[in-house]
Amino acid sequence: MAVIGASGRAGSMGQAPVRYLRDNGYGGDILPVNPRAEEVLGYRCYPSVADCPGPVDLALVMVGADHVPGVIEECAAKNVGFAVVLASGFAESGAEGERRQRELIGLAEAGGLRLIGPNCIGLVNPHFNLVAGFSPLFAKAEWRPGEIGLVSQSGALGYGIVSLALDRGLRFSRVLNTGNEAAFSSLEAVRDLLLDDVTRVVLVYSEGLQKADEWPALARLALQRDKPIVMLKVGRSEVGSRAAASHTAALAGDDEVLSAVCRQLGIVRVDDVDHLLDVAATLRQPRRPKGNRVGILTTSGGAGVMAADACADFGLEVAVLGDDTRAQLQEIVPWFGSVLNPVDVTAQVIADRELFRRCIGLMAADPGVDLLLCSVCVLTGDSALRVVEDVLQTAAETDKPVLFSKTGADSLAPEARPSLLAAGIPVFETSVQAVRAIAALVHFQRVRDGSGTGEHTAAAGEPPAGFPAPGESLSERVAKEILGQHGLPVTREGLAESAEAAVALAADIGYPVALKIESPDILHKTEVGGVTLDLHGPDDVATAYGDVVASVRALVPGARISGVLVQEQVSGGVEMLIGVVPSEFGPMITVGAGGVLVEVLRDTAMRLVPVDRQEAEAMVSELRSMALLRGVRGRGPADLDALVSLIVSVSELAASAAGEWELDLNPVVVLGAGEGARVVDALLTGRASP
Amino acid sequence: MAVIGASGRAGSMGQAPVRYLRDNGYGGDILPVNPRAEEVLGYRCYPSVADCPGPVDLALVMVGADHVPGVIEECAAKNVGFAVVLASGFAESGAEGERRQRELIGLAEAGGLRLIGPNCIGLVNPHFNLVAGFSPLFAKAEWRPGEIGLVSQSGALGYGIVSLALDRGLRFSRVLNTGNEAAFSSLEAVRDLLLDDVTRVVLVYSEGLQKADEWPALARLALQRDKPIVMLKVGRSEVGSRAAASHTAALAGDDEVLSAVCRQLGIVRVDDVDHLLDVAATLRQPRRPKGNRVGILTTSGGAGVMAADACADFGLEVAVLGDDTRAQLQEIVPWFGSVLNPVDVTAQVIADRELFRRCIGLMAADPGVDLLLCSVCVLTGDSALRVVEDVLQTAAETDKPVLFSKTGADSLAPEARPSLLAAGIPVFETSVQAVRAIAALVHFQRVRDGSGTGEHTAAAGEPPAGFPAPGESLSERVAKEILGQHGLPVTREGLAESAEAAVALAADIGYPVALKIESPDILHKTEVGGVTLDLHGPDDVATAYGDVVASVRALVPGARISGVLVQEQVSGGVEMLIGVVPSEFGPMITVGAGGVLVEVLRDTAMRLVPVDRQEAEAMVSELRSMALLRGVRGRGPADLDALVSLIVSVSELAASAAGEWELDLNPVVVLGAGEGARVVDALLTGRASP
Repeated sequence: MAVIGASGRAGSMGQAPVRYLRDNGYGGDILPVNPRAEEVLGYRCYPSVADCPGPVDLALVMVGADHVPGVIEECAAKNVGFAVVLASGFAESGAEGERRQRELIGLAEAGGLRLIGPNCIGLVNPHFNLVAGFSPLFAKAEWRPGEIGLVSQSGALGYGIVSLALDRGLRFSRVLNTGNEAAFSSLEAVRDLLLDDVTRVVLVYSEGLQKADEWPALARLALQRDKPIVMLKVGRSEVGSRAAASHTAALAGDDEVLSAVCRQLGIVRVDDVDHLLDVAATLRQPRRPKGNRVGILTTSGGAGVMAADACADFGLEVAVLGDDTRAQLQEIVPWFGSVLNPVDVTAQVIADRELFRRCIGLMAADPGVDLLLCSVCVLTGDSALRVVEDVLQTAAETDKPVLFSKTGADSLAPEARPSLLAAGIPVFETSVQAVRAIAALVHFQRVRDGSGTGEHTAAAGEPPAGFPAPGESLSERVAKEILGQHGLPVTREGLAESAEAAVALAADIGYPVALKIESPDILHKTEVGGVTLDLHGPDDVATAYGDVVASVRALVPGARISGVLVQEQVSGGVEMLIGVVPSEFGPMITVGAGGVLVEVLRDTAMRLVPVDRQEAEAMVSELRSMALLRGVRGRGPADLDALVSLIVSVSELAASAAGEWELDLNPVVVLGAGEGARVVDALLTGRASP
Repeated sequence: MAVIGASGRAGSMGQAPVRYLRDNGYGGDILPVNPRAEEVLGYRCYPSVADCPGPVDLALVMVGADHVPGVIEECAAKNVGFAVVLASGFAESGAEGERRQRELIGLAEAGGLRLIGPNCIGLVNPHFNLVAGFSPLFAKAEWRPGEIGLVSQSGALGYGIVSLALDRGLRFSRVLNTGNEAAFSSLEAVRDLLLDDVTRVVLVYSEGLQKADEWPALARLALQRDKPIVMLKVGRSEVGSRAAASHTAALAGDDEVLSAVCRQLGIVRVDDVDHLLDVAATLRQPRRPKGNRVGILTTSGGAGVMAADACADFGLEVAVLGDDTRAQLQEIVPWFGSVLNPVDVTAQVIADRELFRRCIGLMAADPGVDLLLCSVCVLTGDSALRVVEDVLQTAAETDKPVLFSKTGADSLAPEARPSLLAAGIPVFETSVQAVRAIAALVHFQRVRDGSGTGEHTAAAGEPPAGFPAPGESLSERVAKEILGQHGLPVTREGLAESAEAAVALAADIGYPVALKIESPDILHKTEVGGVTLDLHGPDDVATAYGDVVASVRALVPGARISGVLVQEQVSGGVEMLIGVVPSEFGPMITVGAGGVLVEVLRDTAMRLVPVDRQEAEAMVSELRSMALLRGVRGRGPADLDALVSLIVSVSELAASAAGEWELDLNPVVVLGAGEGARVVDALLTGRASP
């Protein structure tokens, strides 16, 4: 490994990385490179990387931005594997920096060199005692090989996370700061970790995802390899994302889309560092629960109640214990405790040396328990050691995940944490934190168990015939004509250019009908008297035709009028919406409450396409408007089957029709059971290039 | 202080409390009481409390449940101030225990003794080196006098919280475990702390609040004394509250009501121990912000972005810095940092010794900043000390609250936390935790600044004339008659006992009208054909009268029919609901989306009565349905003034009309601006005694 720009000056930033390598016992050759030095910390110094003896796997490039291009060319010539570029002054710093970064990418690509950074602070691989880079942490940290991988766009925050993790007794397989991600993005870094043999869970700190369209496949790989990805993606808010953009020169994606994609693909999304570490401690162990039923064993009623509350908050079930288990617990739990889950053995565990061991064994053996949370409070000395021993033994005898929370300072029982961690048992300060981490574990496993999560790849090529060009919006009539051709249940309708034609069309369609003005110049038809609803006979239609045209002519004098749309009038039913928008990850489908409730309810479910019937049903069940679909206040239930079929059809269209287009079906009226659903209004727009 | 049941046996639970008192340097006399011992740890032992020399302020009662009544009688005879009873076997353990507890209460009351517990583990007052009770923690903890008071119903969890707090460097003014709260509840304990001279913030862990109706006055006292109450109330979920009930024999209140009361009265409610401690660390210092605009100074862009995201999540503003401030920051912040709030000075603080000091000074001085959050990452050694020094100095020069988050292990800069804490500056592991605590501080101060939060006292005496008896429901017509007498805008209506009478009434009321069957036996009128809407003339009314009566007679053969209600038909407008329910705290008023949307939107705002116009406006603004009231899809805005007036009128009625009654106005139709609001349907019920 070469350290380019190493310095012999004691205490300098150029000397530190060589010291870190030495002090951590790096096994390979350490090759300082500096034309003005003879040696650094006793290692012979070379004038350039070209002069280094033998092959160079990794070059740590510590020179200023101006010198980086030359060094990269030299590294490429030397066939260096990876070059880690620490210098700032690239894309994060304006137009000139962006130019410099493009130049750098070109040089690395031409030379077949994998380039990490620039604007990063390096990487650590404890399995090779490799500490390559510069952080105040490197002077202090003790690295031991572990199974947690961390990929962080930010150097300072990344190593801040690491320092808190080490403090909790967690260990890493690799830590990598990707910086500007010029040529090597979080995506590639995560993929490497998913494919290695030591990493069990991958943590990602991101300020903006590159190559978003490849993340769905990456998430599938994580499911296949049973290695969860846990993501702390910041810049969620408007101010936050502005700050993130100025910080990393990366475009903040649409946050809501990212959350939906994570939920769907089993990526665990977290909002804070402590949550990230709690989840990491839980997912680094290989056990996976069969379900979401939590058994809670506590020495303090209060901690148990808090765990039960948290289960409700996070959508987990407090397991119902079997009659057998309860009966056996009844015999040993003190009368002032509780044998209903949460099982409260009380502080009696201090006096009764068998109590905890027997209870935890019974709970672990209960088939109604999928995971076991042991929640103790301020145990010290012998009783703490005994409880820990009981937990370790039970964990060794069951294949269910076992977690431990302690609501008490580590200093009360200093041996507890390390011995539990060594056995893969996560340790939490509070039972609520434990339950939150269980929710992440259950979520990951549920997605993994789920249907074969098909390929989520956007169709390539040109949009199908009739689809709008970028920036173009199709009229309601034309949009619905196309949708009808793709098999969607649109309202029966036709364009009339005279009152007589309208009456004839109405007779074909069947009464009642609605009339709507058709004009490329009018977006909001209602506001200009361009819509008349609920017409029951030919006279009404003829009169309404004249009224609609007259009103529009009067209020929008110059408007081009193509005619009047005569449309099947759909009455009753529940108004929903179905939409498709392109996203960085691929086309997303949305289902929600429609009509006037859109802004009020903001009640939507979103997925990457395609979705099958089961997933479509799951989307509808997530909605609060499900109550409307089930029928409220004497209204019967709506035709859920028809809604689900329509979602699947729209999803198929979105998955197969290439191009960046948006579809907005609103309202979709879902009629009574067996009566189907109708697309009453539709907007199909080609997204203008940014 | 007497320790009744003290034991001389080394290592026994009866000896431990005497040792704790001695080892903590308790300044008063320590008086062990045990008829079978001569001395305990060198202190002379007395056969009974009566034999103790001089007055006894506090007796720690460590005898079994059977012996407690006798000891209490002796304590009363001796004029002991407080007796702390540790024994279990009282109300938490079934009917016999409840009887014993009532007996105990009687003895204490008769003897004028303040009784704490039973089923508790004692109290600590570090200002008097008083450690009275038994917990594994007492053998380990170092107590120093502080300003945080803690009242905990649970012993184990309470002292678990304390151990975590001490570990974070926090200090207590008093810790009290109230246990079964037989005669001395959390309410009295909190009141004592609000009135003392040392406590600055009161933490409450509760599994069920006693004397809920006195909590509003207690919360007002906290506002007056500028001592925030922070509450961790568990048993929020169904399973959790069942577990809480079995644990403490206290009835879990309605959780939603409690949350509303806390929000309204400035009690900070938290859901986990770490949140409780974060808030305690923040509210224990006396500084209060003038607003909610947060200045964020960071050494890592990522930590700044996370803080900004969290501000958006918790309803805080990221301060907009003045042009002057920005211009001056521009001159000193490195080009790769940021001078937009969050201000990112980057890791350059390590090299540039003046950078942090100058930036924090500028931000603290900016009038647009109400609070200052310094968020650093993995600083070590000299640079960490320097940053801490800069924070301390700035905090000394400003009166704005200053907070510190570090995203890095304490071990990187061990001096940082204690020196910041000593200056009253709270220290957090992550910037998100800091922002969450700021939100609590802002919330408390906002309620404190708010209108004079009037007395929230339920009216005493009998319900007014006409109000329903317990268990009785008034018919729509009778209920609205009463509400009309109290000035509420009910629909014009009258009861007709014949078709002719109905037609005459309709003419008086004005067309269109609606007809509704009036029968004490029919609750759901629509389902039995008992309602006809939108009748436009006398013939329609006459026909509808016959139809309604015939339909009801056919479908509900035995129903008593008092007649048919002829009612003003209200068309258009937005359907809302207004409700009143009694609660443990006093009558609560609810406003929300009405009609068919009730179950779908679940969109309500709730307050303890009375509410003034300003508070009523705040309630409406909280609702998502505010979008409907503002007008959607071409509908004009609704008459907000009328809705607010109606809320205030209902609140006045609820505050002045005594008794346990429920009122459900649904729908209240809010018409267009200037057109008022109408109570269309109403249910007034006397709550049956439980």
